[in-house]
Amino acid sequence: MSEYYEAQNDIIKELDETLAKVNDQEVEKLIEEIKKADKVFFVAVGRVLLSLESVAKRLAHLGVDCYIVGQVTEPAITENDLLIVGSGSGSTAFPLAIAEKAKQYDATVFHIGRNPECPMAEFSDFFARIPASKEANLEVEGVESVQPMTSLFEQALLLLGDTIALMMVRERDIEMESLWQYHANLE
Amino acid sequence: MSEYYEAQNDIIKELDETLAKVNDQEVEKLIEEIKKADKVFFVAVGRVLLSLESVAKRLAHLGVDCYIVGQVTEPAITENDLLIVGSGSGSTAFPLAIAEKAKQYDATVFHIGRNPECPMAEFSDFFARIPASKEANLEVEGVESVQPMTSLFEQALLLLGDTIALMMVRERDIEMESLWQYHANLE
Amino acid sequence: MSEYYEAQNDIIKELDETLAKVNDQEVEKLIEEIKKADKVFFVAVGRVLLSLESVAKRLAHLGVDCYIVGQVTEPAITENDLLIVGSGSGSTAFPLAIAEKAKQYDATVFHIGRNPECPMAEFSDFFARIPASKEANLEVEGVESVQPMTSLFEQALLLLGDTIALMMVRERDIEMESLWQYHANLE
Amino acid sequence: MSEYYEAQNDIIKELDETLAKVNDQEVEKLIEEIKKADKVFFVAVGRVLLSLESVAKRLAHLGVDCYIVGQVTEPAITENDLLIVGSGSGSTAFPLAIAEKAKQYDATVFHIGRNPECPMAEFSDFFARIPASKEANLEVEGVESVQPMTSLFEQALLLLGDTIALMMVRERDIEMESLWQYHANLE
Repeated sequence: MSEYYEAQNDIIKELDETLAKVNDQEVEKLIEEIKKADKVFFVAVGRVLLSLESVAKRLAHLGVDCYIVGQVTEPAITENDLLIVGSGSGSTAFPLAIAEKAKQYDATVFHIGRNPECPMAEFSDFFARIPASKEANLEVEGVESVQPMTSLFEQALLLLGDTIALMMVRERDIEMESLWQYHANLE
Repeated sequence: MSEYYEAQNDIIKELDETLAKVNDQEVEKLIEEIKKADKVFFVAVGRVLLSLESVAKRLAHLGVDCYIVGQVTEPAITENDLLIVGSGSGSTAFPLAIAEKAKQYDATVFHIGRNPECPMAEFSDFFARIPASKEANLEVEGVESVQPMTSLFEQALLLLGDTIALMMVRERDIEMESLWQYHANLE
Repeated sequence: MSEYYEAQNDIIKELDETLAKVNDQEVEKLIEEIKKADKVFFVAVGRVLLSLESVAKRLAHLGVDCYIVGQVTEPAITENDLLIVGSGSGSTAFPLAIAEKAKQYDATVFHIGRNPECPMAEFSDFFARIPASKEANLEVEGVESVQPMTSLFEQALLLLGDTIALMMVRERDIEMESLWQYHANLE
Repeated sequence: MSEYYEAQNDIIKELDETLAKVNDQEVEKLIEEIKKADKVFFVAVGRVLLSLESVAKRLAHLGVDCYIVGQVTEPAITENDLLIVGSGSGSTAFPLAIAEKAKQYDATVFHIGRNPECPMAEFSDFFARIPASKEANLEVEGVESVQPMTSLFEQALLLLGDTIALMMVRERDIEMESLWQYHANLE
């Protein structure tokens, strides 16, 4: 097998294993909170942010009112809104500061990370685990990745978000073609 | 006079002269189109884009529904919307391509530039001139800048936008403090 | 099986099938061009851009000198540089305009898309196909996706880039821990 | 006088007064630190960030190695680097968290703000004041603005940065035309 097919296969296997270990109750809760919220804000840094931006963009096409924290035209958050925080470690400074702020405005905070036992727990109402690394003392054992850095978490986060999008499309029996009406047409 | 005060003074003088030569009828027309539009889109590249993003952010605080072309959650443009194009030369590839697209959707295109005789003219309904450089054969002579590159245009664009914001605040007799309710509170 | 596991499974299967149908010779060529280039530029729009930004970020950690077209501090492209264009259809206005510009400066243009028979072909030196949709008259049949819009292409693009990163790590026998020295530490 | 000329004039007068009250010794110090640094990082939020991004872009054209905190390809900061923090109040959560981090890596932190007596003081080595609002108990009285929100600070920050660029151009007797070689050519 060529090096490409070997590497590609390793990545898909890791992703499959990781996503299969996500708790579907936590995903259902996340979908429920997204539906309930007036506005959904997303915060993260680096590649985790890029994955969340992709997710926000797709959910916006499905009619969810999405905002990236820091975007040029960002509204105020209120107690009727949801903040989705992406942070594998749950200890990154910027998302922590934003989650703390969001709680001051009584918004709901949903943390997606690798480990529920982290500083973010203090500021989150809900948690969904992407078991993209081994963490000590957790019931479900995480996946050990062959990839550099935290690539597996970032990939799985994009796919988790897109899985939610697919579930919402199926649930509402949305006509695929109709989605393009919400899509940017200036590009 | 120290080098700082000399340079600072040179820049303020250039800006003052440039903004004083802007045609106030063109500014009034721009404000009218902003008010008339359902949604206002902004497109530009480089520092010109950064100036427009600042303007969009301030206008959003005044209740204008603003979008940057290319932002993560960008809606479709329609015939009830306005595209504001910032391009000094009026010949930059990306804004040209976007303006052409916008006309296909029957949106109104307002070009802010240095010279009305440019390729952008083909795709614009309206033009406002920031005379931030000498251009041949124009009635009002432009300002020759001592600054590097096209800094004067970019600065004047920000200040023109903020002048419009101030005019809108005065016209509507807006209570300054009340504006913060639309401002991002997660930062 | 719950709706989450069903949807997750559908996505992984699509991705596996799509990536397995990518031509490994095209991937090898892409890696070769990345290594040969002085600087690597990336251009795309929307979610495709977000995937490429993630890839650029990871490759930068591996020592590749990466730039996103439009980023705040973007250098000039030269004949020693590579432009990687992400565009499924190969007909999006902005990437087309940029690819045309890049050819004027004699840079190498590598297009990653769904279909080699597209307007981008005029401005590209090389092509790698992600068969994320059925296209008429192509030797290798593409994958029909159950997902909304072009999600499959965007996901596969991220994973293709990360596969390349993993191949480069393996080839150079890079010590994983050492990679963090290039990583942003202000976050 | 029409409403446009009146508003434009008010803004220019405020800016002139504000920039004339900046301490030129503080500006000289800022230039010295920029020249001394290997890499210069910039951090801020909202319109303040947009102003700093414009400044970074222009300084990059003058050969300064500039990075925006959070940009897709952001290197690690070291003790040979400079972090320029833009924050009027000196109490915004994100810049504070980043400045604290930068000090952990022994980088130099230069804060540009309205008031030296602020939480940022704990993490900054140097301070330059833009007196864009009245602050109690400061030797030089600040300017009271007629503009909404903190527009005056954001405008003055852009112009302060561009003044520094002009001073650097003059000091080095740079041929203006030559600057374009560092400018992005893909746009």
